[in-house]
Amino acid sequence: MRRAVAVFWRTRSFSSSNCLPKFPLVSLDRHDIWYPPPSPPLHLRPHYNDHQTTTEIDGKLIANDIKAALATEVNYMKNSIKHVPGLGIVLVGKRKDSLSFVRIKKRACEKVGITSEVVNLPENCTEGEVLDAVSELNNKESVHGILVQLPLPSHLSEQKIINAVNVEKDVDGFHPVNIGNLAMTGREPLFIPCASRGCIEVLHRCGVEIIGKKAVVIGRSQITGLPTSLLLQRHHATVTVVHSSTKNPEEITREADILVSDVGVPNLVLGHWLKPGVVVIDMGSTLVTDSKGSRVTGDVCYEEAILKASLITPVPGGVGPVTISMLLYNTVEAAKRAYQWTGKS
Amino acid sequence: MRRAVAVFWRTRSFSSSNCLPKFPLVSLDRHDIWYPPPSPPLHLRPHYNDHQTTTEIDGKLIANDIKAALATEVNYMKNSIKHVPGLGIVLVGKRKDSLSFVRIKKRACEKVGITSEVVNLPENCTEGEVLDAVSELNNKESVHGILVQLPLPSHLSEQKIINAVNVEKDVDGFHPVNIGNLAMTGREPLFIPCASRGCIEVLHRCGVEIIGKKAVVIGRSQITGLPTSLLLQRHHATVTVVHSSTKNPEEITREADILVSDVGVPNLVLGHWLKPGVVVIDMGSTLVTDSKGSRVTGDVCYEEAILKASLITPVPGGVGPVTISMLLYNTVEAAKRAYQWTGKS
Repeated sequence: MRRAVAVFWRTRSFSSSNCLPKFPLVSLDRHDIWYPPPSPPLHLRPHYNDHQTTTEIDGKLIANDIKAALATEVNYMKNSIKHVPGLGIVLVGKRKDSLSFVRIKKRACEKVGITSEVVNLPENCTEGEVLDAVSELNNKESVHGILVQLPLPSHLSEQKIINAVNVEKDVDGFHPVNIGNLAMTGREPLFIPCASRGCIEVLHRCGVEIIGKKAVVIGRSQITGLPTSLLLQRHHATVTVVHSSTKNPEEITREADILVSDVGVPNLVLGHWLKPGVVVIDMGSTLVTDSKGSRVTGDVCYEEAILKASLITPVPGGVGPVTISMLLYNTVEAAKRAYQWTGKS
Repeated sequence: MRRAVAVFWRTRSFSSSNCLPKFPLVSLDRHDIWYPPPSPPLHLRPHYNDHQTTTEIDGKLIANDIKAALATEVNYMKNSIKHVPGLGIVLVGKRKDSLSFVRIKKRACEKVGITSEVVNLPENCTEGEVLDAVSELNNKESVHGILVQLPLPSHLSEQKIINAVNVEKDVDGFHPVNIGNLAMTGREPLFIPCASRGCIEVLHRCGVEIIGKKAVVIGRSQITGLPTSLLLQRHHATVTVVHSSTKNPEEITREADILVSDVGVPNLVLGHWLKPGVVVIDMGSTLVTDSKGSRVTGDVCYEEAILKASLITPVPGGVGPVTISMLLYNTVEAAKRAYQWTGKS
């Protein structure tokens, strides 16, 4: 047996004002740009298990059920303490998708009796103006939840602005205190990001056991991928996060019992990325325009995935509506906490 | 092809005061109690690659190098602004291991010229007394870093006490704001937990490329496993966290290019858990007493691992000393920030 246990040491030069070599503290961030690996032609891909029965999860139905229950609760709140929950939305600029999301959120609030107000700021506003708007909502007693519609124009610091949201009104769950408490065992964040919470809600409602399961999350965005991976881990799944630096992602996803994707690349996840019987939660949402017109599509190739998955969320109509209902839920929770009202006994 | 895409719905009863079924918000926490899977006898385990040259990483040498550079820097600070960094330690009770850790930390501070003070509280002190001690250190100008020696007696809320540490003095990096910022892409925490930072420091110094590598972290403790997994992910490794609910952990660890273990179970990681050429960072530390006497041992069966690993940290003498030097480093950083002193130009 040839083996050598050697003492390793590599010298580096240090200046006294620079005790550690200049590695970046948490590494350089890189944009997660995806170059999907080339797919073998369909007839060469691994054999499909086409005897699988796939169940499509109807997110609208789940969302409507939650909204109906919330509407009853808000009504009861109104009757018993003469207050209703309020949501404040900060919207900067006129991005089409942001305008559309804000419209959907406002309409959903109306539906359950939550008041909502939108602070509209011009595209070229200053950071100070956004911070003032947040601060005003922080101080407003009738506003219990605040969300800053992302993304913000690039001249504004998302970090500074999100940090300015009162943790107790952070219904998006993006404040680092809430993310930190989500990550840390034994702690509870005040709010969990809506999409992540929606994902777990869907899994629970469909009776999917999470504990001990292999979960793979594709994407590590702050608003979805990262908190979903943390939340799945808090539910005792064995979680792997796949991102654009991952080599051979399809080898890793093929091990998953639960696969969550949130990268915004249509058809990234093909049939041969999936293990037969996998539960697929497709959180991607990309507007695609082609000869068939414009439509929203997820990250998963639905036609191939339904030949492998046991459960799958479609796009649209899957996790999206549940995410919106979770925002309403978080807002109602925020109001209940603010009024120290525990609801119907 | 038989397949059915059915619309899934499972009814649940909701009361209006309970819009979502009572799933725990972030699931029930469970103690990570490890029952190592039975190991096949040595002659039946997969063939060892015994032609591997294993390099043992000398953590003491790395730590001494960092400490020497820090000592020079502290001395320079003293001469140029007449201040030195100060560390405040809150120690509750008289746990043998805690006393020993505090002694080591104090001695390390002395070595580089950092002043340190220990606030000793009795085992049966109240939470208020600990919070007062923290608050006093928060307000003390000569103290730039504060650490609360863990674990605390069970009648005290670790969460409340750690949250009370000023984020700018949180040299242990355990405050949720620092953990949240560690998790979130694009952000930088003020401090990174010392053991995690030590792990990355060791990898960097040994020239181990992290980006795109498969990293497996065994254990998800708040002080080591969790932040290490987050930090490896920030360095663009594809990270899987293995914990006590993971089925067949050895199948997952065998895929790892970088394996980090931090669970405190001696000999959990045997040779057949490892891929030939893996880099093993053993963060476990357990006091074992047997016929050979008392000694500290890690999670990895060193004798088997050196037949597989390309690089390995021993226990003791591996990541431990580097961790202590990272605490000193964080304290010096804290002082530099407090005095807005950037060091030698």
